[in-house]
Amino acid sequence: MDDIDGLTLEEKASLLSGHDEWYTETIERLGIPAIEVGDGPHGLRKETGVDMVWVPATGFPTASAMGASWDRDLVRRVAVAIGEEARAEGVQVVLGPGVNMKRSPLCGRNFEYFSEDPLLSGELGTAYVRGMQSVGVGSSLKHFAANNQEIERTRISVEADDRTLREIYLAAFERVVKAADPWTVMCSYNRLRGVHASENRWLLTEILRDEWGFDGVVVSDWNAVHHRVPALVAGLDLEMPGVGGATDQEIIAAVRAGELDERIVDAAARRVLRLVALCHPGPSLVNGPIMDLGVAPGDRLSSEQLSLLRADEHHALAREAAAGCITLLRNESGVLPLASPERIAVIGAFAAHARIQGGGSSGVDPTRVDNALDLLISSFGDRVAYAPGYVHTPKDAYQDDVAAYLAAHDATFVDDGHGPARRSAALAEALRLAAAAERVAAGPLFARATALIDDAVGVAAGADVIVVFAGLPLAFEQEADDRTTLALPADQIELIGRLADLSAPVVVVLSNGSAVTMDPWHDRVDAIVEAWLPGQAGAAAVVDVLLGRVNPSGKVAETFPLAVEDTPGYVTWTGERGTVLYGEGVFIGYRWYDALRRAVRYPFGHGLSYTTFAYDDLDVSIVDAFAGAVRVSCTVTNTGSVTGKEVVQLYVGDPDAAVRRPARELRGFDKVTLEPGESTRVVFELAGRDFAYWDVATGERGAWRREGGEFVIEVGASSRDLRLRSVFALPDDPDLPPLIPDEALLDHKSSRFTEGHR
Amino acid sequence: MDDIDGLTLEEKASLLSGHDEWYTETIERLGIPAIEVGDGPHGLRKETGVDMVWVPATGFPTASAMGASWDRDLVRRVAVAIGEEARAEGVQVVLGPGVNMKRSPLCGRNFEYFSEDPLLSGELGTAYVRGMQSVGVGSSLKHFAANNQEIERTRISVEADDRTLREIYLAAFERVVKAADPWTVMCSYNRLRGVHASENRWLLTEILRDEWGFDGVVVSDWNAVHHRVPALVAGLDLEMPGVGGATDQEIIAAVRAGELDERIVDAAARRVLRLVALCHPGPSLVNGPIMDLGVAPGDRLSSEQLSLLRADEHHALAREAAAGCITLLRNESGVLPLASPERIAVIGAFAAHARIQGGGSSGVDPTRVDNALDLLISSFGDRVAYAPGYVHTPKDAYQDDVAAYLAAHDATFVDDGHGPARRSAALAEALRLAAAAERVAAGPLFARATALIDDAVGVAAGADVIVVFAGLPLAFEQEADDRTTLALPADQIELIGRLADLSAPVVVVLSNGSAVTMDPWHDRVDAIVEAWLPGQAGAAAVVDVLLGRVNPSGKVAETFPLAVEDTPGYVTWTGERGTVLYGEGVFIGYRWYDALRRAVRYPFGHGLSYTTFAYDDLDVSIVDAFAGAVRVSCTVTNTGSVTGKEVVQLYVGDPDAAVRRPARELRGFDKVTLEPGESTRVVFELAGRDFAYWDVATGERGAWRREGGEFVIEVGASSRDLRLRSVFALPDDPDLPPLIPDEALLDHKSSRFTEGHR
Repeated sequence: MDDIDGLTLEEKASLLSGHDEWYTETIERLGIPAIEVGDGPHGLRKETGVDMVWVPATGFPTASAMGASWDRDLVRRVAVAIGEEARAEGVQVVLGPGVNMKRSPLCGRNFEYFSEDPLLSGELGTAYVRGMQSVGVGSSLKHFAANNQEIERTRISVEADDRTLREIYLAAFERVVKAADPWTVMCSYNRLRGVHASENRWLLTEILRDEWGFDGVVVSDWNAVHHRVPALVAGLDLEMPGVGGATDQEIIAAVRAGELDERIVDAAARRVLRLVALCHPGPSLVNGPIMDLGVAPGDRLSSEQLSLLRADEHHALAREAAAGCITLLRNESGVLPLASPERIAVIGAFAAHARIQGGGSSGVDPTRVDNALDLLISSFGDRVAYAPGYVHTPKDAYQDDVAAYLAAHDATFVDDGHGPARRSAALAEALRLAAAAERVAAGPLFARATALIDDAVGVAAGADVIVVFAGLPLAFEQEADDRTTLALPADQIELIGRLADLSAPVVVVLSNGSAVTMDPWHDRVDAIVEAWLPGQAGAAAVVDVLLGRVNPSGKVAETFPLAVEDTPGYVTWTGERGTVLYGEGVFIGYRWYDALRRAVRYPFGHGLSYTTFAYDDLDVSIVDAFAGAVRVSCTVTNTGSVTGKEVVQLYVGDPDAAVRRPARELRGFDKVTLEPGESTRVVFELAGRDFAYWDVATGERGAWRREGGEFVIEVGASSRDLRLRSVFALPDDPDLPPLIPDEALLDHKSSRFTEGHR
Repeated sequence: MDDIDGLTLEEKASLLSGHDEWYTETIERLGIPAIEVGDGPHGLRKETGVDMVWVPATGFPTASAMGASWDRDLVRRVAVAIGEEARAEGVQVVLGPGVNMKRSPLCGRNFEYFSEDPLLSGELGTAYVRGMQSVGVGSSLKHFAANNQEIERTRISVEADDRTLREIYLAAFERVVKAADPWTVMCSYNRLRGVHASENRWLLTEILRDEWGFDGVVVSDWNAVHHRVPALVAGLDLEMPGVGGATDQEIIAAVRAGELDERIVDAAARRVLRLVALCHPGPSLVNGPIMDLGVAPGDRLSSEQLSLLRADEHHALAREAAAGCITLLRNESGVLPLASPERIAVIGAFAAHARIQGGGSSGVDPTRVDNALDLLISSFGDRVAYAPGYVHTPKDAYQDDVAAYLAAHDATFVDDGHGPARRSAALAEALRLAAAAERVAAGPLFARATALIDDAVGVAAGADVIVVFAGLPLAFEQEADDRTTLALPADQIELIGRLADLSAPVVVVLSNGSAVTMDPWHDRVDAIVEAWLPGQAGAAAVVDVLLGRVNPSGKVAETFPLAVEDTPGYVTWTGERGTVLYGEGVFIGYRWYDALRRAVRYPFGHGLSYTTFAYDDLDVSIVDAFAGAVRVSCTVTNTGSVTGKEVVQLYVGDPDAAVRRPARELRGFDKVTLEPGESTRVVFELAGRDFAYWDVATGERGAWRREGGEFVIEVGASSRDLRLRSVFALPDDPDLPPLIPDEALLDHKSSRFTEGHR
């Protein structure tokens, strides 16, 4: 007997949209409970009973910081912790992780994404989903797909060819879906090739389900559904939030009118019911770390219980996580770790009030927030002198965040022609808050800038070392908006330059969720510590790194360019007239800079340590030539005097391909910990897919093609610090379907750019 | 009574394909004569009675050289001369000019195109067509459209959006069609958005005829027709060359079967008949320079008459033309013009055997060829020492040319499934010649390179000045192939470096049809004279410039980049799997380098003079604000001590547009001659279109949109040597149709990249 046989059409339809913002519909007659979902993914964001006020939760480093950790296990443990907090609050699905690619560093939501590389994003996304789901909380892999800018995000149509989508924009999703089986996948706001992701059958059904085998629930991004019945047919199971049942009625009417096959409703309802079952398991289903708390699976922890049991432990994990992310970009003359200075100038308002996260749906109300100034004073006492140097109003940060989130979501609401009354007041408040935030950013900041800078320079004069905390204000990095510049705010640039005029060494600690440019100050400072948006314990981790209690091991998961004009897609960013052309194809991130032999500030994979590592003895063994199975190994040795962690990176190049391929692509990485003098053998297992490209001319719909020929293996400490290299040959994949000749391929296609033909 | 009423269907169909390679079909019953067409466009290329042997003709500078002249009247006069030679040989239509854009400097046929800018190309193309047609010889505007690479040219499908096509790739054609009314337009080989140009109704009928008002004949590039009936329906009137009547039968059969409306046949036949009438005019039709010869219009000049009347005069014009094209790129310490040296070393085989043209259908058999070495010896006598420095076999040049042309055309033939027997022997010969040419290029060149370089350095040692003739071998620049590097041949790079090691100043004279890179030798030489492919009298013009008898006035019509990786479209060049994506959109040439703030070797519009010019008193007057009519004027003064010519360039920028526009776009230019101390007022009349962009969201099919707002006018001596600047405002165009909202625009379109959906 089918599990939905007992449900009426109305009941089935009711399962396909939310009850409200955060709950699915219950069916009391059958005892079918609701699912509660909560925002994330860098910590739980659950609404309290009061509108737009959130329960306290541990704020972990954002995804761009975690990306720089290159540490699968660290990501897994953070996800476990967030899952535990979700369970404690009764939240059964957390809306994350985000594995979209960073097409441009200007995307305002890049802080929520891991990397510009699909392998790294996919591996860390996999670790996240596995970690969260291991404690019985579902994840929602998002935003599927090609949501790579915030401007016009609900309307913009991404024009990208199949190869670009398959190799770059879909690859991380594919990896996570196949490896970690997320309970839900969230469709994105944007259009892909003219069709909204929420209605894109090719994306949601043909690729996600039919090719990749996804059997969970496809949920909409909030208010991303425009036409409910076409969306359902395309594969969108669950519309969120609820819209008062109006779209359920559309589904019912379409079935009654014979326009919609009820089996499509059944399939979606069945998937939602399976998710309900996962979210409300029997005692035997969940086994995992939650058991350590002595709490039975399915039990709900109170906030008080959480506070008692987890707050300290999770804060410590947040600190450890931040320490694993922090990336030492520059360290001239060994200024770091800090020796014991006589006088240390701590400059920058972020030192006193840390920038911990970006704006929008991922903003959490942190359980506590460390600050670097207090911690440095606790180490150095009155040897510390402090000046803010620029305006930062941390108490507003959370409010700004709310404002941005509301503004974004309400804008979507209004644009889509919906507009329940309860949103109106919230929208008005959001606009009020946004205006206030803008005044903070634009007004006193510049009026008071010179005085603050002068004061800071005065404070720093005579110090033995100057540590300046800089970075991006919240307004620069938030959902629903993109950056217009990669530079720091002008007053901070001026401040750093003035401090560099002094004789003491200058250490810059940066807080930003995505790459920034560093002109004209870069060469004038002695050290740069990239702290990212490191969560609530980030400041403690920064101090750990500054003082050498932690040896930094982060590596940038995104290229830091020299100038915004150097970035991929620059001339088409953010599109026009509703369309953005991904004209650079697969060449984003380091793939772009390498293809153009463009100098960069910091290459993908770069990060310094307080120790050094040697790479030796590369071995490339072909395990199964026809399958493309290759084992690569090398020896890595800590050649310095302190314990450290190294991210060993493996890149593959295919210089002879029939299509133009990147010079190198990340195909493996491992983070190893080594004592001074210790060596380890790092082993990578490569498979056929690691050598293949997506070929539109292979098979009926295109296919992964592994051509025979020479391949290049490079292993090193960054994409431009390659220590070992080997060239070897593989035969053709014997199982490949024949190539479709160009003529047939083209004759078979319709014209693509059709403006003139409409 | 209709002019074709008397023709049978068979007769009408017979007019729609050639009789053979060079003639259209006659209809003896009605006294309808054939039209003879001849290749061009840098000189007449007419086949003698012997296959692949050509009548001698004056070889003028190729189009990329003429582009650097920025001289409308010079181009007109050259076209008049070519037209006169065509008339003398009985050729009624010359296949040119080519106004395709230089998307990449790697395109092997760039030497046949004027510029990377559509205004410059369109203006010079207009001058060419007007000049040629003024002597009663038709031109064939080619290659329509978006034929911007030679690799895969018969198959590749160009994927470009409407705005990119309208603003860049179609704009020069539009200008020429509207201004000069060419008798014929030649469709290109490539596909556009999946559809061959020869079958592209949007291109050949909707845009060319319906929008632009073209009423001449659309002729195919040779063997570009793949499906005759669809091509005819699309607007392709005349298929060339003839294929023995087979496709006429297809047309007849389609009419008889009711699949083709006979009125379409009638319309095409009528257009061919009108062309026949133009080509065989009554005595009153032609008035123009040909009358100066005392030859009645319609009379045929014999080759002997031509030789007597025109050879000297046209050679002198070729020399004047080359002098107007030659571009002084660099001149440090005033090394040029040459003072009278005691000892002058002339190095480089091109000095003795000039490179005058590129390979392929534009190659002429020149009436004579000057060489710089003889001319320098005639000036300096035994003070000249010469060494070849590298291998160049000038006698093979013409044969190589034939080989490349044949190979290209026969390859097309074979690929298309045609293959008349008479081509087989020619193909075999072409392949033999091509193989021989390759041996010349690859074999002795490198085996003998070191010895030749050593010898040259020995000859140059002790000279007061070293003039080295360098550039690209013919094999680098020819139809049907693209370059793989922008560099000079390795032996020439080595040669120049070795000469620069000596103490004497080094002058480099370059012969190449498109931009080259100049690392690592650029900064080490004192002067660089870009001679382009300057035609048969180019060497004399070079010597005129070297000695100061001519003050150089050329300006590069294409950016010289620092490296091939800097070039627009680099990551998608030359496409893959049958498709090339123009992902950089409108940003080609200087539009690309300016958008990315990329340093270049020589910017668009750059060229030095032996004098200097001052720019003053910019005036911008709004003549009709709502029409966008603006008059711009400025004063240019020769502030040096010799007479010179300056190309005054006007650029317009629209920084506030709703779409992303180039920083500046050429919207006017004028070449003025000034005596020392003389001033002139240069006036430009701008119209609404000069401020507009193509907007897919305006009107039913898109339209030119002039938004109100601020515009920037810049006037100067190159795109990066801007001397005058003005910002002013224009109101919205009051006649614009309303904007289509993005949603409607997107809902109206089909998906574009459809690989996954086929």
